[in-house]
Amino acid sequence: MELFYAYDSDSRICRLDADESGHCCRVLRHRVGDEVNVIDGLGTMYRCRLVDDNPKGAEAEVLEAFPGWGGHPYRLTVACCPTKNNDRFEWFVEKATEVGVDRIVPTIGERSERKVYKTDRALRIALSATKQSLKARIPEIAEPVSVKDFIQISPLASLGRNDSTPCHFERSPEGGVEKSLKLIAYCFEGDTKRISIQEALKAYEGKDITILIGPEGDFSPEEARLAVEHGYIPVHLGASRLRTETAAVLAATAVYLHFE
Amino acid sequence: MELFYAYDSDSRICRLDADESGHCCRVLRHRVGDEVNVIDGLGTMYRCRLVDDNPKGAEAEVLEAFPGWGGHPYRLTVACCPTKNNDRFEWFVEKATEVGVDRIVPTIGERSERKVYKTDRALRIALSATKQSLKARIPEIAEPVSVKDFIQISPLASLGRNDSTPCHFERSPEGGVEKSLKLIAYCFEGDTKRISIQEALKAYEGKDITILIGPEGDFSPEEARLAVEHGYIPVHLGASRLRTETAAVLAATAVYLHFE
Repeated sequence: MELFYAYDSDSRICRLDADESGHCCRVLRHRVGDEVNVIDGLGTMYRCRLVDDNPKGAEAEVLEAFPGWGGHPYRLTVACCPTKNNDRFEWFVEKATEVGVDRIVPTIGERSERKVYKTDRALRIALSATKQSLKARIPEIAEPVSVKDFIQISPLASLGRNDSTPCHFERSPEGGVEKSLKLIAYCFEGDTKRISIQEALKAYEGKDITILIGPEGDFSPEEARLAVEHGYIPVHLGASRLRTETAAVLAATAVYLHFE
Repeated sequence: MELFYAYDSDSRICRLDADESGHCCRVLRHRVGDEVNVIDGLGTMYRCRLVDDNPKGAEAEVLEAFPGWGGHPYRLTVACCPTKNNDRFEWFVEKATEVGVDRIVPTIGERSERKVYKTDRALRIALSATKQSLKARIPEIAEPVSVKDFIQISPLASLGRNDSTPCHFERSPEGGVEKSLKLIAYCFEGDTKRISIQEALKAYEGKDITILIGPEGDFSPEEARLAVEHGYIPVHLGASRLRTETAAVLAATAVYLHFE
């Protein structure tokens, strides 16, 4: 099944940008009259008929709409410090998208080796993985934010985001901030008791989950303390020592399996 | 914590090969008398004192042995068809090793686009991920085998393996072949009922698990039929359509989380 992404769509017409139009009309040689499947990146898949096969700007008329297509029954934010090796973070973006994530927030920790992160490649990877894994909603890739700032923002607030991200993180229909589960994976030293991520998920009845994953050098004690003060629950991800990007994908996978 | 791998070790002496010796004595500048931590790749970590700092062949005397160090409470074989893009399969090897796997079997399916697979790079990746994730046992990377041959081999039999693999897959202490859980992730069409991988794990009381993951083009119906005839339980990995390597890592992660 081939999916195309429409940067602009309504209940009648889907418009493809130059990249998607070229792929649809030049590479795959679709012509006016062909049926194509189009996603709006916001959660709806449209069965369409091509009405303009211009390879620089194709248009398709909507025959049928499938809201919530390929969706998942939770809302997950993974805030993760970009790794020194960019490929590793991009791999996390691809895998978390395949498994099912709603928002990825590149966070910069005090001990992060990478202090700058550009979101444009991650956006392309998220779009590609969304189509490949047959989903209609592209995860939001937020603009980078410091770990401390992220902790102090309400988990359901809108973050500064790249304008080309087509998604908005919506407020939980069940309620406000209080109902969201906030987890921090950190090797707290001393007395801090940590539960496993599965125990934390089992004890929670809502659907809004935020997971914070630190950089290669881990969070600073101040960042960890601030997170706990703001309601983050310290969790561990099992006995293995995992790389940053592995921890982030494992956390997203634990949520996905929990809601299966 | 830095770990070195000894290709040869006994209760008294660990011997490092040229790569490991160079890393230990030239790069990290360890000298005779320094304490170093050495793994034998078979499950034991040794606290040692360096007695020969030759960067082409270092030796360390054992001070203390930690058998089962960094181990996990299950025995997992993931048999996965190598992906067209080799990086994706190697990524699976790295991530499965970090999470915890005992044996990786590259299987060639009737619909595999990649019919040939060389294990040497995967062996290096598995060694590196073993050390990075603080484990003493390197997963075995078996020589490639056809899906049909693999299905017909007892899951606890020794497979043809690369001679440089230091691990042996051991027979379950609890019993024989009957007690091992064999799973196949395949989109069976028609009437075949599939349970989730978690349901299959919950219903199983043993510790020997084999998971078979198909190629990009999926298993052939004959391969799937043969697997079921040989006791493989059809499972699904949730609602998402996952890439081959993502499915393989997710399956290993589900086992890891199940035994947490």
